[in-house]
Amino acid sequence: MSTVVTNIGELVTNDPAADDLLGIVTDAALVMDEGAVAWVGRAADAPAADEVVDAGGRAVLPGFVDSHSHLVFAGDRAPEFAARMAGESYAAGGIRTTVAATRAASDDELIANTARLVHEMRRQGTTTVEIKSGYGLSVTDEARSLAIARQFTEETTFLGAHVVPPEHAGDPAAYVDLVTGPMLEAAAPYARWIDAFCETGAFDADQARTVLAAGADAGLRGRLHANQLGPGPGVRLAAELGLVAVDHCTYLTDDDVHALRDAGTVATLLPGVEFSTRQPYPDARRLVDAGVTVALASDCNPGSSYTSSMPFCIAVAVRDMGMTPAEAVHAATAGGARALDRDDVGHLTVGSRADLVLLDAPSHVHLAYRPGVPLVRETWIGGRSTTGGR
Amino acid sequence: MSTVVTNIGELVTNDPAADDLLGIVTDAALVMDEGAVAWVGRAADAPAADEVVDAGGRAVLPGFVDSHSHLVFAGDRAPEFAARMAGESYAAGGIRTTVAATRAASDDELIANTARLVHEMRRQGTTTVEIKSGYGLSVTDEARSLAIARQFTEETTFLGAHVVPPEHAGDPAAYVDLVTGPMLEAAAPYARWIDAFCETGAFDADQARTVLAAGADAGLRGRLHANQLGPGPGVRLAAELGLVAVDHCTYLTDDDVHALRDAGTVATLLPGVEFSTRQPYPDARRLVDAGVTVALASDCNPGSSYTSSMPFCIAVAVRDMGMTPAEAVHAATAGGARALDRDDVGHLTVGSRADLVLLDAPSHVHLAYRPGVPLVRETWIGGRSTTGGR
Ligand SMILES: [Zn+2]
Ligand SMILES: [Zn+2]
Repeated sequence: MSTVVTNIGELVTNDPAADDLLGIVTDAALVMDEGAVAWVGRAADAPAADEVVDAGGRAVLPGFVDSHSHLVFAGDRAPEFAARMAGESYAAGGIRTTVAATRAASDDELIANTARLVHEMRRQGTTTVEIKSGYGLSVTDEARSLAIARQFTEETTFLGAHVVPPEHAGDPAAYVDLVTGPMLEAAAPYARWIDAFCETGAFDADQARTVLAAGADAGLRGRLHANQLGPGPGVRLAAELGLVAVDHCTYLTDDDVHALRDAGTVATLLPGVEFSTRQPYPDARRLVDAGVTVALASDCNPGSSYTSSMPFCIAVAVRDMGMTPAEAVHAATAGGARALDRDDVGHLTVGSRADLVLLDAPSHVHLAYRPGVPLVRETWIGGRSTTGGR
Repeated sequence: MSTVVTNIGELVTNDPAADDLLGIVTDAALVMDEGAVAWVGRAADAPAADEVVDAGGRAVLPGFVDSHSHLVFAGDRAPEFAARMAGESYAAGGIRTTVAATRAASDDELIANTARLVHEMRRQGTTTVEIKSGYGLSVTDEARSLAIARQFTEETTFLGAHVVPPEHAGDPAAYVDLVTGPMLEAAAPYARWIDAFCETGAFDADQARTVLAAGADAGLRGRLHANQLGPGPGVRLAAELGLVAVDHCTYLTDDDVHALRDAGTVATLLPGVEFSTRQPYPDARRLVDAGVTVALASDCNPGSSYTSSMPFCIAVAVRDMGMTPAEAVHAATAGGARALDRDDVGHLTVGSRADLVLLDAPSHVHLAYRPGVPLVRETWIGGRSTTGGR
């Protein structure tokens, strides 16, 4: 069954052939058929279709591509968050608190929690989400986390190298051996990507390199968490390895920026992290001006960024990271797609997947202009409405 | 018909008799009858009622009291916002752009736009909203704006002294005469409050004093916009006049803070404004520590703060204004009620209006911990569900 969405006041296509960044078509229509975009153009020229959706002059955008999240976990860390915001110290284990809760949870509990967050994301316009493991940190629990993630997305990432778990605290090298050996073997069937947290206190550049090399041998493509808490070697390692994306990028030297540009590695910025930890924001303006491709993602996780809202990330990127509304929207759609090396999503041109969002607003600008307001009226994934908001 | 909401994981009562700021009851229930709260306590002790709502362990809060908004207007200023965020100058008229659009709009258009925003607020948990005029700035258009506002709330505020409109640009004194004369006479029947924008470029302290005095003679209580863009006399004037609240308070001297504390005047902070204009945030911590009562409000308007989201304001107040989650939630509920001199709302104790919010979260902390996420599951006003989110 074909569907035409017509009377679109502003259609963001992200068509790279357009003169403007967002490839905007006004007074537009879009036809979906068999899960793909079949036609895009002016409403007056639209062909007939089996079903007609009247957008009422509102804006339609590509669905958001959230290329960085950690949705498979149990429990939350609200008391830790409240203490941090009160300026109090809190004797908690950070990530390890969530690891303990996740290991103790049943499959059903983990599935239900992941489903809740994926549903929440869809209501807010996210149509592609990457989900990492990293709260299991044992052979069994990492494989289980990824098997669950795989129920919700093809963009699954093995993050055994998230932190060294307590039982290996005395011997990180032995833990890297575990990650690159039996854990990788158990996780690989459920993962597309492999990731490591390359940061002081987590894994150094040599360890991250070892983890990604082992992943490559197992058929997994690499990505990195890097330069979140301070300057470090992670971003340059990502560029050297030609990774498709490196995430956080809060502390960058000029050499880091040039390396990203020269390698064509996407810098994925995670505004929710700095918002929720009161850390300084990454400088998106500097990256864009240097010619680096920027993606925005939620990093949804119970410790440092428990938002699932790409509209919120867009608003903060505009307020605090120097992006224009158009740049932020592009980074949250086409940027995320680049960060996952996907060319079927992140844009609305003929042949792309029919992943789209109808806003309760006349323009993409409203995502930053109306911060915090739930502006997503309806979300389609592969041509099917997943919210039924009409 | 009575309703019991039971299985409430965390009930925020704001009971002033409690030991903690929020008067939290865990494993709680609440009975509503004839629009009021009839009983509050532990779920195990709850009396029977005609209807049972199972909160599923989630949090219930008093509805948000948004004591500062400008909802009666036409058009939006998205291009102006986008230009500001791009660092470009924009040859627009600011407030005057909205004045022109509002004057040109039909009653039906203004009513529909106001209704849209009030509905949007309810979905986000706001159960009491103050609405100002201030985009008419003529006798007819101010009276019309307030008559429309009055269809949605009893908390209506005459803000003829918002800016000097273009037709009086050469003679502000004559405009003040108009505001305090025929415009006040036409507006007063629809207003509870009178307000003035006391700021360089708008009205000085003598003019603001004149406006509020005339309002008092007409039976309207005073409030002020002050110290938004720089230090000024407005906050001290508010304290001197013993106003219930003064709004913005971004630039305060120590004398201003002491004057607020001594007068018992509420400082209403509007985080959406600083978020949307990239201005420095007011220092809520300083005010709270000095013993000043703080309210949070949206200032929802198409120029400087087009958010309608009290949860968003709470999250920003925690991130950027030094409030704890509990302080911010208190300021958005009990604080707003204080700012409107209302003792029937802003808390959930026996006899208060049954205005409450059921969150999709186990704790009030999540309003800051999960920024941007639409966490309001259901809203009741006077005991009636206005969202039907179940
Ligand atoms: Zn992460
Ligand atoms: Zn205002």
